[in-house]
Amino acid sequence: MPSINPERLLNDLKTLRSFGASGNGVIRTALSEIDLESRYWLAQRFADAGLDARLDSVGNVFGLSTNPGPAVLIGSHSDTQPQGGWLDGAYGVVSALEVARALAEDPATKNFGIDTVSWMDEEGTFFGCLGSMAFCETLDPAVLRTATDADGRRLADVLVQAGLDRQPPVTVQPERQVAYLEAHIEQGPVLDDSDDRIGVVTAIVGVREYDIHFIGEQNHAGTTPMRRRKDAARAMIALASDINQRFPETASDVSVWTIGSLSLGTDSSSIVPGEATMRLQLRDPDEDVMDRLESLLLEIVAAHDGRHGVRVECQPGERLRPAPMNESAQRCLASAAERHAPGRWRRMPSGAIHDAQILAGRLPSGMLFVPSLGGVSHSFAEDTDEDDLVLGCQVLCEAAINIIKEHTR
Amino acid sequence: MPSINPERLLNDLKTLRSFGASGNGVIRTALSEIDLESRYWLAQRFADAGLDARLDSVGNVFGLSTNPGPAVLIGSHSDTQPQGGWLDGAYGVVSALEVARALAEDPATKNFGIDTVSWMDEEGTFFGCLGSMAFCETLDPAVLRTATDADGRRLADVLVQAGLDRQPPVTVQPERQVAYLEAHIEQGPVLDDSDDRIGVVTAIVGVREYDIHFIGEQNHAGTTPMRRRKDAARAMIALASDINQRFPETASDVSVWTIGSLSLGTDSSSIVPGEATMRLQLRDPDEDVMDRLESLLLEIVAAHDGRHGVRVECQPGERLRPAPMNESAQRCLASAAERHAPGRWRRMPSGAIHDAQILAGRLPSGMLFVPSLGGVSHSFAEDTDEDDLVLGCQVLCEAAINIIKEHTR
Repeated sequence: MPSINPERLLNDLKTLRSFGASGNGVIRTALSEIDLESRYWLAQRFADAGLDARLDSVGNVFGLSTNPGPAVLIGSHSDTQPQGGWLDGAYGVVSALEVARALAEDPATKNFGIDTVSWMDEEGTFFGCLGSMAFCETLDPAVLRTATDADGRRLADVLVQAGLDRQPPVTVQPERQVAYLEAHIEQGPVLDDSDDRIGVVTAIVGVREYDIHFIGEQNHAGTTPMRRRKDAARAMIALASDINQRFPETASDVSVWTIGSLSLGTDSSSIVPGEATMRLQLRDPDEDVMDRLESLLLEIVAAHDGRHGVRVECQPGERLRPAPMNESAQRCLASAAERHAPGRWRRMPSGAIHDAQILAGRLPSGMLFVPSLGGVSHSFAEDTDEDDLVLGCQVLCEAAINIIKEHTR
Repeated sequence: MPSINPERLLNDLKTLRSFGASGNGVIRTALSEIDLESRYWLAQRFADAGLDARLDSVGNVFGLSTNPGPAVLIGSHSDTQPQGGWLDGAYGVVSALEVARALAEDPATKNFGIDTVSWMDEEGTFFGCLGSMAFCETLDPAVLRTATDADGRRLADVLVQAGLDRQPPVTVQPERQVAYLEAHIEQGPVLDDSDDRIGVVTAIVGVREYDIHFIGEQNHAGTTPMRRRKDAARAMIALASDINQRFPETASDVSVWTIGSLSLGTDSSSIVPGEATMRLQLRDPDEDVMDRLESLLLEIVAAHDGRHGVRVECQPGERLRPAPMNESAQRCLASAAERHAPGRWRRMPSGAIHDAQILAGRLPSGMLFVPSLGGVSHSFAEDTDEDDLVLGCQVLCEAAINIIKEHTR
């Protein structure tokens, strides 16, 4: 069984970190100059590993195997948040490169097909999961015309400026690519808290968002008696409190819900607010659980609607279905995890969105997590023990081999 | 007993409305060109009524009686909110003018001293109750140097531009001025709901404000399990809900409390907020009730502080003591009200701030309210039945006469 080269893995990770390094973190947002530089460097590393390397029309970097037979596509993204950690995405990309190199060096696996990839803009500088959606042919073509970044720069212009618009698109080859694997930091505290070293992802959670509007009557905060008020803030507080008190009855162990946005139509200590809005986000790996939470939400909204003269309206927003990971990919990852970290791995959902959620629609997909120290991510402070980085890559390597073996049996 | 002239009262009110008229409302913010124009018109009306008329160094308009003996100062403000009603303030100013004229026309009262006034900037375009504070010598001199409006225009510059800085200041004359009376629309629904026509104000409420800060930990809304969250929004919702549920135990019939400002340190559906702030305002005419509500608030804050890892800090802000109205002034207003609207008047606190709150520190002060239709104010829709406008002015007139009689007995 081939072994990955820990030093080479860590060195390449550190070199990638140097593109956009800022303190312990990295600033390498999608299609920035430094992101493009790092992608050409990555393409060179893929080529050095004997892969057919190229950037496609949206800036995805591919290293395609020239071996005949089934291939496993492995990768993640190398763009970062505006203040990103050094491992988020980068770890999965460099691990894919290392797996390709390890297999190529071992006579027993040198003919195995490993495709590597770094997806463009998973973090949504222009449009979240842009690259993986383009590859999977699920990207709405309008996005390429209309998407802009927070500064108003048009994605289309930036792609032209980078010369990427002339590159041919690269799309999924389901007859050749038999699976997609992605390694990633957990971005949460579950592994770090439990002292487990590997997470085998069972599903990437679904997301549902709701904008809840409260329409009362704006009034003078001194002269309007309490019983006469149609106070939108008060109604919002009461309903939000009910959500927080009643959701645990219906939620699963891994359900999360967040009120990340709250606002009033007025902002004055002397005005009874006439309007208020809050946004609620639910995440759960199980569509049935999300259905039950949604029913409970609508029941709570109906119960509050009209109380003290305040109308309540609930408007559904973003809606992403959970993406279960492929059973066979999970099994291959789990057996590799048990061999290399016996008793110290677990199955778990991913609460964060990943490119694997997009890929799962086109290829049997699997994901593995390594621990995030303190559960921290999207922060310069993000980090993982080097031993865990090495272990995760070794597990990924063995899982890829097992998948290819299953397909060539 | 002199009678006011209803037609003259309403005509002058309508003329004053024409300065800055906008639909049914008025835009005549303090020290705007139209506000200054209206003040020179008012000064002329005061002079026509035989009063010694002048604008002072902050733009207060006075009509001082030249009669010897005690005088009652009567007035209100004629500046408006950015979108103001036509009666808020203006009604009290024109009523004062009409009372002065009515007394001057009646041989029995023509030697009675009535001073009239329109205060500058009660509504706080630059600084709330600027004019009455300057008159009462309670204005912090720094305000004149530093106050600006929402557009950043400096009060000092605007006063120079208007030529007001060269006018001598006018200050309270407690040896001559024996009382202050102010008529005002209620700006609330109490009279309109109860079908009473006059409110005799017992006290202007005190105000206390508190900024409550919640300091938790910002986190990823997908990957952070519920039990691990230090969610500042959740803590704020729970505490605000407790306030709304527990305050009624301790509040008086006329206590009001308002959460008019709520904000989160982040505004994203995918981020667990690490910081949140809300502002609570209390109003009550009774200092003891406010003390008890404050104790309860601090008890609630202490109970929530540290729950789920979120620190809670409560920072007191603005603090205005209740201003009880003078007993004798109340009695004079009440007996006049009972004579002209038997059984259809009530004693009541003022939930809104008025210049009388400032004056009460220097002169025995009284206030009367007329109904606001639907309780609406600070709005173009603000209105009052003409019959009530006339009645209020007549009651004001008789109360002023009775006060002067008490002082010349």
